[in-house]
This record gives sequence, C-alpha cells and structure tokens, in this order.
Amino acid sequence: MADYELFELGDVRLQRGATIRNAILAYKTYGTLSKNKDNVIVYPTWYSGQHYDNEWLIGSGMALDPARYFVIIPNMLGNGLSSSPSNTPPPYDKSRFPNVTAYDNVKLQHRLVTEKFGIKTVKLVTGWSMGALQTFHWGCLFPDMVERILPFCGSAKCSRHNFVFLEGVKAALTADAAWNNGWYEKPPTKGLRAMARVYAGWGFSQAFYREQLDIKSLGYSSLEDFLVAFWEGFFLPKDANNLLTMLWTWQNGDISDNETFRGDLDKALGAIKAKAIVMPGQTDLYFPPEDSEYEVSKMPNAELRPMPSIWGHFAGGPGLNRTDVEFLDKALKKLLAS
Amino acid sequence: MADYELFELGDVRLQRGATIRNAILAYKTYGTLSKNKDNVIVYPTWYSGQHYDNEWLIGSGMALDPARYFVIIPNMLGNGLSSSPSNTPPPYDKSRFPNVTAYDNVKLQHRLVTEKFGIKTVKLVTGWSMGALQTFHWGCLFPDMVERILPFCGSAKCSRHNFVFLEGVKAALTADAAWNNGWYEKPPTKGLRAMARVYAGWGFSQAFYREQLDIKSLGYSSLEDFLVAFWEGFFLPKDANNLLTMLWTWQNGDISDNETFRGDLDKALGAIKAKAIVMPGQTDLYFPPEDSEYEVSKMPNAELRPMPSIWGHFAGGPGLNRTDVEFLDKALKKLLAS
Repeated sequence: MADYELFELGDVRLQRGATIRNAILAYKTYGTLSKNKDNVIVYPTWYSGQHYDNEWLIGSGMALDPARYFVIIPNMLGNGLSSSPSNTPPPYDKSRFPNVTAYDNVKLQHRLVTEKFGIKTVKLVTGWSMGALQTFHWGCLFPDMVERILPFCGSAKCSRHNFVFLEGVKAALTADAAWNNGWYEKPPTKGLRAMARVYAGWGFSQAFYREQLDIKSLGYSSLEDFLVAFWEGFFLPKDANNLLTMLWTWQNGDISDNETFRGDLDKALGAIKAKAIVMPGQTDLYFPPEDSEYEVSKMPNAELRPMPSIWGHFAGGPGLNRTDVEFLDKALKKLLAS
Repeated sequence: MADYELFELGDVRLQRGATIRNAILAYKTYGTLSKNKDNVIVYPTWYSGQHYDNEWLIGSGMALDPARYFVIIPNMLGNGLSSSPSNTPPPYDKSRFPNVTAYDNVKLQHRLVTEKFGIKTVKLVTGWSMGALQTFHWGCLFPDMVERILPFCGSAKCSRHNFVFLEGVKAALTADAAWNNGWYEKPPTKGLRAMARVYAGWGFSQAFYREQLDIKSLGYSSLEDFLVAFWEGFFLPKDANNLLTMLWTWQNGDISDNETFRGDLDKALGAIKAKAIVMPGQTDLYFPPEDSEYEVSKMPNAELRPMPSIWGHFAGGPGLNRTDVEFLDKALKKLLAS
C-alpha cells in the first residue's frame, strides 16, 4: 500500500565509477500534468527526508497548489525509498553501496521527468537543505529547461565549515562499535542517538534555544524531552548506512564538480539562467547567509532573500514554524507569478 | 620536575554533597607578590587546559607582566593536575569522581589566595571560556575583594544552546564502547577522536573555515590535516573521565546556583561590584555576544566589548591569532590602569 511510485532506471553508471544495477527512483506526484506539460514543479527531498516529509509546503491555496501545478517529489538516492544501502541486494548492499553525488541524483531525476512524463520545461525547482543542493544542480545542468529556482537553506557547494560539521555527525555515529563498519545486524542505536545529540545544537539557532521555543512553540516538556523525543526520535528509526550515504552526497555536493564545469564554481553559478530567489535562513548555523550571498553575486538572474527567523536551519522545514512557512510560500507565489 | 605547586586542601565538602579527601589544587605563580599584596591577578584555566596553556597571555610588556603583577593560575578541578578522576585514589577515582561546580572551584581558589598567600584584594580576575565562568564567580562571590574582572569568550551561566552543544560532545565520546562508563583500562580513542571532530565545527567560525585560516594562518596542510593534527591531537592525550568531569562543571555553570543567590541570575550579576569588561568573541558559536550583552545589562559597572574576529571561540585563546591577543591585551592594560 505504498503511496509512491517507482521509476525503474535499469543499470545506472554513477559519476564516481560504480554501477547500480536495476536502480530505482521512488517518487510521488501531486496534481495533474497539464496538456501542454507546462505546470511542472520539481521538489527534491532533504537529508534523510522522504517524499511525505516535503508535503507541508504543498496544499490548496499555497504556492505549490496541486489544483494548479503538477508537483513531482523525487526521493534522494540513499533515503531508503530510492536505491539505498538498505534496499539494494548484494553485492552492492549495506556498506558496499556506492558513493552517489547530487549530480547523479539530478541526472536520474531528469530521466524521470523527461522519459516517464515527457516534460520539456520545468516551471520551478525548489527544495530545502540538500533539496536546495539538488535545486542548484537542476538550474545549472538544465539551464534551458528550468525556468525558476528557489533553493532555501542550502548551498550550491558544501562549504568547508559545513563539511566539518558533518564530520562531527559522522564521527558520533561511527564511534559506536555496533556500527561495525556498516555490517550491523542490529541498528547501532548508541551511535544514532549520539548523532542526534550532535545534530541538535546545529539544527536550531542559539536564539531558538535561548527563547525556549522547543518548549514554548514546539510543546516539548523540557530540553531533555526535546533531545530525546524530537532528535533521537528523528534519527533512531533511520538506517545508519543510508544516513552515511546521504552524508557523503552532502559533503561532496558541488554543482561544478562534473565534466561541464570542471570545478569552476563561478562558471556553474553563472550558467544558471533560471530566475532565482536564493533563500538562506538568517540564523542557519551550517548554511550561513554569507555563502548564499556569494552564490547570488555570481548568478545572472538571482535575488538574495534571507528568512528573518531564529529557527536556524529549521526555518526552512519541515514546516515547524508558521511564520517561516508563510514567508517562503509568499516568495514562491511571487516567483511563480513572474 | 613539575613546574607547578600543590596546595593541600584537606577534606573538601563539595556543593553537591560529596567530599574529596585530601583534595589538591595545583597552581603556578608568575612574578612576585608585592609587600602590600596589592598586585594580584587570578587567571583560572579553561576546559581541559592546564596552567601552561594560559601562558600566552603573560609576558614582559604585556598587561599580565610578571615584572609588575603576581599572577596566579589555579588549575581547574578535573583538569588532571588539581584533584581529578585521573589522580584521585579509590573509592572516588575514575567514574566515581564527584560532580564539582565552578562554585566549588572558585571557593577553593579563594582558599589558596587567602590561606596560602594572605591576599586580601585581587586587582583582576580574567579567564577564557570556562576561565570566564570562574571569573564571573569570583566577581559575585567576593565582590569586596575583586577590583576588576575581564571574562572573555565565556558566560556567567551555561546557556541552553551551549548545554546542547556539550551534549553532542559528550554523546560522541561516550558512544565508544571502550569508554565503558568510565571504567576503561585503555583510553577510548575512537570516542576521543569523535569528540574532537564534533568540537572542530564549534571551535572556529564559519568564516574561519571559509577563509581557510586553518591552512593559511595556522599552517596545516589540509582541512583533514587540521582535523587530525590539531583537533584529534588536542583531545587524544586527555583522560576521558577528566573531560567528562569538566564538561559537567561547564554544563552546570551558573553564578546564581548557590545559597547566596538561589537561582536569581540577575541578582548575582548585580552583585558584581568589580569594574568589568565583558568580552565575547563576535563569531563565537557557543558563547554568542547576545548572552554577554544580557549579562552586562545586569551588571552595575560593566562594559561590553566584543572581539571583532572571525576566529570564533578561539579568538579568546590560546593565543593563536596575534590580532586577537593584541585586542585583548590592550583592554586588559586599560582596565588595569583604571
């Protein structure tokens, strides 16, 4: 009774050399594709999120209104629904699942959009966090196809500081002996809980904790309750190898790391023809606005519009704070109307 | 051939109930105590630091000039030189070493200063990070004795966000099975390395990493070299139980958590008579300037003077960046001259 579809990709040669046999891309669509196929929005998922985790931004009366648009949410490789360590048969299972890049992800999403649906233009690509990374990729890899992009709380390239933050997350998870280099039978729960606690300080801003929004807005009964129920509860059900696969994708995210741009980030940013709003969170600790500012300075048709929020990275998702959702939704509406 | 002295405290009853038998306070002094005993500077240590780690701020021609002042550096309990899990005999050894507060530390430091040296006034208390926490304690617990304070990159009370950051550090260290609840024979090196990687993202700012100061200023050969040589190299030699003891001290740091102030932080801040400069780092990720701003607003005789630096928490120490050292030293000179 899955609520999503599978697109069978056959054997997929990845950017870093491995091949996934019988690769699958799990996706879900919302709304109806118009006769002219001109009402398409692509909305990739974020780190460990699955399609339903994106649904908070879709709805009647919202920018992403299924009555108007055909919204496609492709699940990221490694997220447990598309090809992942947890669902790939041997010999590429578990710890042997290959390194996949955001480039790989977006190339396969492009196949879904074109081969499955015969779509030639995309009205908008948008996404949060790693979804923003994929959004930037769409913009520079398919500049004549993508009309608009709105990446929020993310970047076109993983910054060095962001990389270091993720090193900490990874080190906490893999410090658990039960992880066993990925060959666990039972989940490395101690590592997953440790990873969650490391993430907790990064996900929300200093001001968020100062104002006790974990209690006063989100309704947790104490700080420790927030750490256990929200954070540990978030990571515990997830597969460690999947998490590490997506973490690698994140750390190695770079729109210029491919044959087209050969490491020239400015050139890749400059190749994005789409009308763009780049929306960092004002208090995001791992995607600080300064990085977005640089990106916008190199994009020909982009505007920087930071979210004035103290919700840190979670200003961008998954729909926790109504004010932030409204800010984002309003920008999406204006961008779609332009 | 130790370069420090031991002050024997006898049996010390701690704030939270336990007693350390034959407790010791390790300290080092610089310069000569004047006949009037009016040239005293107390300069407590920081998280895991030992007295020699403080020496970068002491020197001829600097504010803390041994030719002029008698500088006392007391080692924090748990730091491996003063009473610590690693040097206390059973039954209070290792994992059984009791919880000690910053209050405990400063009360014992006060005994050193008064009982050992017969000192009645202290010209200045200053310190970085947890040293700043102890500095605030000196100010409010001994308001008639302490003339000046300059806490830098620290706070009077551990903020909720800072607490969460430390939860991540702790979780990474203790995820290593070799830690064994503190009853290890061999060091839990995987946990210590994990802790180091978690810390790496917090210690320096996003801008520090963006500008590649790890390479261009500190001379490491790559980001990974910085993570291994600086960060893992920093924590690996340290004792895990000592680190956890000091971490508890930090997380529970609060100048008002005692019988005098009974949790009233504003009252405790208001009790600080000393002329004060409170100096946060402008880009410190776990002691953000906003918290210092609040503190200063409640202190009767304090000025806020943020360090304009992109070195994050390490703007304050241990002497890595000359510009920051000069900024701090200049403020110390002016404060001492006032």
